[in-house]
Amino acid sequence: MKILDKIDSPADVRKLSIADQKKLADELREELLQDVAKKGGHLSSNLGVVELTIAIHTVFNTPIDKIIFDVGHQTYVHKILTGRKDQMDTLRELDGLSGFPKRRESEYDVFDTGHSSTSISAALGLARARDLRHEKNRIVAVIGDGSMTAGMAFEALADAASSKTDIIVILNDNEMSIEKTDGGLAQALSKARTKPLYTNSNRIIKKFVLKIPYIGEWIVKVVRRIKHTLKQLFIPNMLFEDMGFTYLGPVDGHDLDKLESMLYRARDLKGPVLIHCLTKKGKGYKPAEENPDLYHGVSPFDLDKGVVKSKSDDYSSIFGKKLAELAATNDKIVAITAAMTSGTGLTYFKEKFPERFFDVQIAEQHALTMASGLAVGGMIPVVAIYSSFLQRAYDQLIHDIALQGTHVVICLDRAGLVGKDGETHNGLYDLGFLKVVPDITILAPKDYQELEDMLKVAIEDLDGPVVIRYPRGQEAYHFDIKDQTKRLKAKKAEIINKGSDILIIAIGKMVARAKEVADKLKVDHNIDPSIINVSYLKPFDEKTILALIQSHDMIVTIEDETLVGGLKDTVDQSLVQNKITKKVLHFGYPDAFIAQGDTKDVERRYGLDTESIESEIFKSFQS
Amino acid sequence: MKILDKIDSPADVRKLSIADQKKLADELREELLQDVAKKGGHLSSNLGVVELTIAIHTVFNTPIDKIIFDVGHQTYVHKILTGRKDQMDTLRELDGLSGFPKRRESEYDVFDTGHSSTSISAALGLARARDLRHEKNRIVAVIGDGSMTAGMAFEALADAASSKTDIIVILNDNEMSIEKTDGGLAQALSKARTKPLYTNSNRIIKKFVLKIPYIGEWIVKVVRRIKHTLKQLFIPNMLFEDMGFTYLGPVDGHDLDKLESMLYRARDLKGPVLIHCLTKKGKGYKPAEENPDLYHGVSPFDLDKGVVKSKSDDYSSIFGKKLAELAATNDKIVAITAAMTSGTGLTYFKEKFPERFFDVQIAEQHALTMASGLAVGGMIPVVAIYSSFLQRAYDQLIHDIALQGTHVVICLDRAGLVGKDGETHNGLYDLGFLKVVPDITILAPKDYQELEDMLKVAIEDLDGPVVIRYPRGQEAYHFDIKDQTKRLKAKKAEIINKGSDILIIAIGKMVARAKEVADKLKVDHNIDPSIINVSYLKPFDEKTILALIQSHDMIVTIEDETLVGGLKDTVDQSLVQNKITKKVLHFGYPDAFIAQGDTKDVERRYGLDTESIESEIFKSFQS
Repeated sequence: MKILDKIDSPADVRKLSIADQKKLADELREELLQDVAKKGGHLSSNLGVVELTIAIHTVFNTPIDKIIFDVGHQTYVHKILTGRKDQMDTLRELDGLSGFPKRRESEYDVFDTGHSSTSISAALGLARARDLRHEKNRIVAVIGDGSMTAGMAFEALADAASSKTDIIVILNDNEMSIEKTDGGLAQALSKARTKPLYTNSNRIIKKFVLKIPYIGEWIVKVVRRIKHTLKQLFIPNMLFEDMGFTYLGPVDGHDLDKLESMLYRARDLKGPVLIHCLTKKGKGYKPAEENPDLYHGVSPFDLDKGVVKSKSDDYSSIFGKKLAELAATNDKIVAITAAMTSGTGLTYFKEKFPERFFDVQIAEQHALTMASGLAVGGMIPVVAIYSSFLQRAYDQLIHDIALQGTHVVICLDRAGLVGKDGETHNGLYDLGFLKVVPDITILAPKDYQELEDMLKVAIEDLDGPVVIRYPRGQEAYHFDIKDQTKRLKAKKAEIINKGSDILIIAIGKMVARAKEVADKLKVDHNIDPSIINVSYLKPFDEKTILALIQSHDMIVTIEDETLVGGLKDTVDQSLVQNKITKKVLHFGYPDAFIAQGDTKDVERRYGLDTESIESEIFKSFQS
Repeated sequence: MKILDKIDSPADVRKLSIADQKKLADELREELLQDVAKKGGHLSSNLGVVELTIAIHTVFNTPIDKIIFDVGHQTYVHKILTGRKDQMDTLRELDGLSGFPKRRESEYDVFDTGHSSTSISAALGLARARDLRHEKNRIVAVIGDGSMTAGMAFEALADAASSKTDIIVILNDNEMSIEKTDGGLAQALSKARTKPLYTNSNRIIKKFVLKIPYIGEWIVKVVRRIKHTLKQLFIPNMLFEDMGFTYLGPVDGHDLDKLESMLYRARDLKGPVLIHCLTKKGKGYKPAEENPDLYHGVSPFDLDKGVVKSKSDDYSSIFGKKLAELAATNDKIVAITAAMTSGTGLTYFKEKFPERFFDVQIAEQHALTMASGLAVGGMIPVVAIYSSFLQRAYDQLIHDIALQGTHVVICLDRAGLVGKDGETHNGLYDLGFLKVVPDITILAPKDYQELEDMLKVAIEDLDGPVVIRYPRGQEAYHFDIKDQTKRLKAKKAEIINKGSDILIIAIGKMVARAKEVADKLKVDHNIDPSIINVSYLKPFDEKTILALIQSHDMIVTIEDETLVGGLKDTVDQSLVQNKITKKVLHFGYPDAFIAQGDTKDVERRYGLDTESIESEIFKSFQS
């Protein structure tokens, strides 16, 4: 019988000997590999925190002690150990286990963490609440070094330090941020990690000590002998100790003995404590160790063959290739990402134009304002960012870009429904929150070709801030319409089909859906709806739409967004303004947080699949 | 003749001897005092940077070299020295000089900075653009220690360090963040400022060096003699040098000789350089030196008498007092501010309940997530924040609060038009960007009494995230309606007047405006409009409104917001959904950035004063 079979809660983990815990670690790795190979999900990070998760649940009295994982996708082991191992086969499916901590899922999930860098803030809030309630439990934030690069984590560290309250921050340092940069936090951590001699110390000591009369030279020799001690004392803890944390570490995050004794030590210290824990992404699965990025987030794969990189295009790769193509003849184009080079398709650009490529780490706020600075300096910055992460830089978009009217092109990937990553990563609000911003241009392409054309027009012809919004994944339909740049330059909507009775107004990926619906309505009911692809949500081409509206009895809007502030409201206000009363039907997501799951499953649940839309329209049309 | 009279541009400053520059500094202080006493504005910070601004324009070749001031309100001296001294009497007025740098105003204003902590990001963008264009000018960010507390500044520092490009950051350390906290950045800076001996160095040296055979004791003595040198080398520069900056300083920011020689040194260094410059807020005007907070931002005042603190209430003080009152009987209530204790009226709460009060510095992101942690921990957090600063924490509102449904009450001060601070500080977008957020409650009071009642209901009766939005300044009209808590608990709109013909739907401070308009329509034209105060924008009490709509010919909405996403769109969609066609008139700001100026002047320009609204309504009603 496996040890894992006997583990129903952390209490069972605590009973194990270190030797058995080590066996458990092996079993957990096997379990993780099976689960993720079958269901897809985050692999490298979870393989990296097997021992850390065991150690935490051993040393801390969960769920009374509170553990917050940051980013939350490293909680698969935590889920297995906290009574959810039998549900792992529903991971990331509709109505299944979330790929992130969810308070509604388990009392062991203390705070929902989907976006990075929130854990220290949340932990400090919990710690302050505990203090005010005169309780005594421990509060622990487990944060990756990547997450630590976000300014928000720094804000929280500073406040935690000044609070003097008991809080433990475990810095899970898997060198995510190290490979890409050698300044900032990465540099500070790197020093700590290797405990190197302070680079200048020899020089400094020589320069000043040698001047001491008579014995200077001799002192230098002695000092060299004690420099190992000195560097231990002076170097590793600067950043965190300077801020007011007690710094412990670094400790090998795969050595259960050392790890647990370090955690016991931290547990009994007063005030803010930071434990610097070194782990290896993908630990225990060779392909993932060698290529942790490839195994970061994966689709189901064959464990023997490993992950095979998909060669088929998606919106991200189409964007990346087109941008590289445009940049070849326009040396003003620069590209910016916040730690999402491959996710946003910028790998092509980075390889071809490394000097014009900037990965600022998980720093969306800085990314946008830096982009605006580049624009003021005469460049054309293109920021590729996921919709839900742009929420992090909303003020910078308004205050540093739109207000100054700088020409920054924001390519908004993962806009609309994202599927299995679920509610924290859905890009279902951007049309609404972007439309509120004055002087911004909002575009959404119906297919790859229109994305390419929009990118070209956005860079070469438009001015001020421009956002191009496109979904995760692949185009559903290729419209095969050549050279739309003329229309796009004129900021006109596109009439995809001129029919009668019903006018369908759609945006982005929902234009393809509208086409499918229209085709079905024709076949099933001999109705031939007109279809408009708005292309621009702002400025909105009301003229083209109004010209068509009069000859139709019913108006339908379809968007990949909640029904607040986006296409629906835009069309509604045109109707009111122009005193048009027609039968109106709006398709989009309800004003709520939308569940995880396979995109098709989720769309069906919310009535946004072709069949549901068709039948709703037909029902309403007949009534 | 004054030296200042001969200064038309920085070139004239550069020609002056240090002795004349010192005289110029005195004249500038006199000029500042006259200007601000007459027009109001930011005093303490500008008095603090007189020498720094002179030195910068002396050492750097502006406007070819680029200077970015952060926060931008410390640019009055800069404006005077860059050809705008004759316009200082239009400061902060409609069509006058802005109180912040504006690129459209002068080529010396490099980047518009209204919100804090953006300068290093912008400077790095400019530096990278310069490098790509093979140009050679210097890029300088001047950032206060308060601004340095925001995570965004940390993100930018890290990226600047890793960039290795030539960039100069002048940390204008006036101890803004020091008085309030002793952890985090403040602690690190404090160490640097006083250059103390590393507290443990004696102990460490003794412990290890004494063990060296024969000569240990003697070494300790020698080391003590050189410890002054050692501490200079090891201590002050940790945080910034660790990140990859060359650290210079600290330097006395009021000593022109030292300051300029330090700036020359920095100018000729390669790579990222940080100059730690110590200045005194309010320098040269005793009342401001003694009470820099009182003289931070002032209304016009008498120089001899000084600023007299206003005793009359405003929305902020009403909020603060009511919160303190509620907290007296409810020990779950905690209050959070991001460096805006007195601005948001939280002084009352802080004095009464210091242990339940948290000022997190300029860290809006952290503030909201920390609040959510407090809520999970069983407290009822109330975050008081300005509307335009909430933009900084939009993701935290969505991801860390709304998604988890934590009960956090956000009191949104300075919502709507703010007046003289202008476009960067206007809270004209919050109704739109908040409405997009699922599961949020949005309230706006018509007067003080309703704010008090809303606060009580929000804390005691509502659930999940609640935002109460109210304007800068005082109530325009007191409605004298007692106990609205029952209606507010039921989430109902309020019928202020039941008339005929015209239905005016208004929100927040515009309810008082609607009342004035209705009163005038009655007197002038014998029309008696109905008035609805919506109280809740979300959930929207469509029922109360629809019940009244049928008996009116014309519908009018009035809001203190741009006409995107707020009350207008909410009413429009109700009309479409319910197939109502009536004459509709919407009052609010256009979808644009709205100019600075006295509130009354700005409202008049945009047709939102009582007279304009009345005449527009009457015109439309008759047509």
